[in-house]
Amino acid sequence: MPTETPQPAFVLVRPQMGENIGAAARAMWNFGLDRMRIVAPRDGWPNSKAAAMASGAGRLLDEAVLADDLPGALADCTYVFATTARVRGLTKPVYAPERAMQVAAEKISAGEKVAVLFGPERAGLENEDVARANAIINVPVNPEFASLNLAQCVLLTAYEWRRASGEVEMERTDMGGADWASHLEVEKLADHYEERMEEAGFFFPEHKREGMKINLRNMWSRMPLTGADVRMLHGVLRQMVRWKDRGE
Amino acid sequence: MPTETPQPAFVLVRPQMGENIGAAARAMWNFGLDRMRIVAPRDGWPNSKAAAMASGAGRLLDEAVLADDLPGALADCTYVFATTARVRGLTKPVYAPERAMQVAAEKISAGEKVAVLFGPERAGLENEDVARANAIINVPVNPEFASLNLAQCVLLTAYEWRRASGEVEMERTDMGGADWASHLEVEKLADHYEERMEEAGFFFPEHKREGMKINLRNMWSRMPLTGADVRMLHGVLRQMVRWKDRGE
Repeated sequence: MPTETPQPAFVLVRPQMGENIGAAARAMWNFGLDRMRIVAPRDGWPNSKAAAMASGAGRLLDEAVLADDLPGALADCTYVFATTARVRGLTKPVYAPERAMQVAAEKISAGEKVAVLFGPERAGLENEDVARANAIINVPVNPEFASLNLAQCVLLTAYEWRRASGEVEMERTDMGGADWASHLEVEKLADHYEERMEEAGFFFPEHKREGMKINLRNMWSRMPLTGADVRMLHGVLRQMVRWKDRGE
Repeated sequence: MPTETPQPAFVLVRPQMGENIGAAARAMWNFGLDRMRIVAPRDGWPNSKAAAMASGAGRLLDEAVLADDLPGALADCTYVFATTARVRGLTKPVYAPERAMQVAAEKISAGEKVAVLFGPERAGLENEDVARANAIINVPVNPEFASLNLAQCVLLTAYEWRRASGEVEMERTDMGGADWASHLEVEKLADHYEERMEEAGFFFPEHKREGMKINLRNMWSRMPLTGADVRMLHGVLRQMVRWKDRGE
């Protein structure tokens, strides 16, 4: 069964190689999309090479909606995007993938049914296909080298869908079970190092003494230290003192 | 020769299959990146399978910097990202690809040298590798199905670099050589249809007449018509009148 999550349908138009259909299914499911439609696949359907390539995403192929032609695949859709690398000379809005999937998310949350068309591997969508779409998605590839394959185009669009549907955390720190050191802990660490370095004769020559102390203390404050880091750094220093005391 | 454009280096750490190294080169060059570094490739270097797969991006392989180990590959870098699918239990900032490449762009424009690490196909980066990085990049894949391959991870990161380096147009209309219709052109089109429909007896019954006229006029105003569209719609209507006049 498909997931309940509202989402666009991804429509593969006249795909050629089964492997690419399978890779497209994997790319979709990597970003939580599972509504595939397939128009007139060259080698018929089902396709064993597609199934082999899809591996963990095989369910998408089993549940894919087949259609003989594009109007048949789009009958229930209210808004259709066509992905294309080329400018077509058709009067039509052209979106970057990010903006396109934002528009898709808005339309879908307003109850619309949205589809995204992906053309056959060799030549891409025909103008006849693009004329049936409401808007174009253009991936901003290097103009000197535009060679995205079908699954890569599906991957980038699915990735942008996931970003647009608002589930992506931009930034966090993996604490690995640790806590940040408190100001007091850092202060005591700085004191510990300053005292031992004083005993060791590190702050030399005399006229640089205060500046060196400030630099050392400033360094500890600049570092994003955990409580465990602070304990480790105390241990490092104590061990150096023990080593010295052993008189080796 | 590499392009002059300031950019991060992409570092493939102990890559296994030559095909994947070639596919990574293509993925980079699709988004204008051409600084690859390779650490201890399993099958030695150069690698004919990598070259065959890279096709149009073969220059990246010829110019790739080889290193025996990770510290050797990173010697000149001031900030290093590690891409990883798993949480590591290392205390470290974790960025979404978009934010990571924004940070990279800021650092690079401030003169820093930035690298992004990609692990070997099977297992990804070791914790020993990740501990050498300043931050982690985590691609927001479906937790039920996280199966990005090496080239796909490179592709998404390169795509985000291109977005962050500010060359992507979010939205435009491909006019295909056409101009939007002027208000006057649309007004005259609406008049033309209204007159002919009046003659044809379309506005019936009488009590709905004014409402129907308003709806018809409103429809024309809602449509994003070009001058050519307006001329075509005039032609459609004139042709219907001619057909009627032929009395077939």
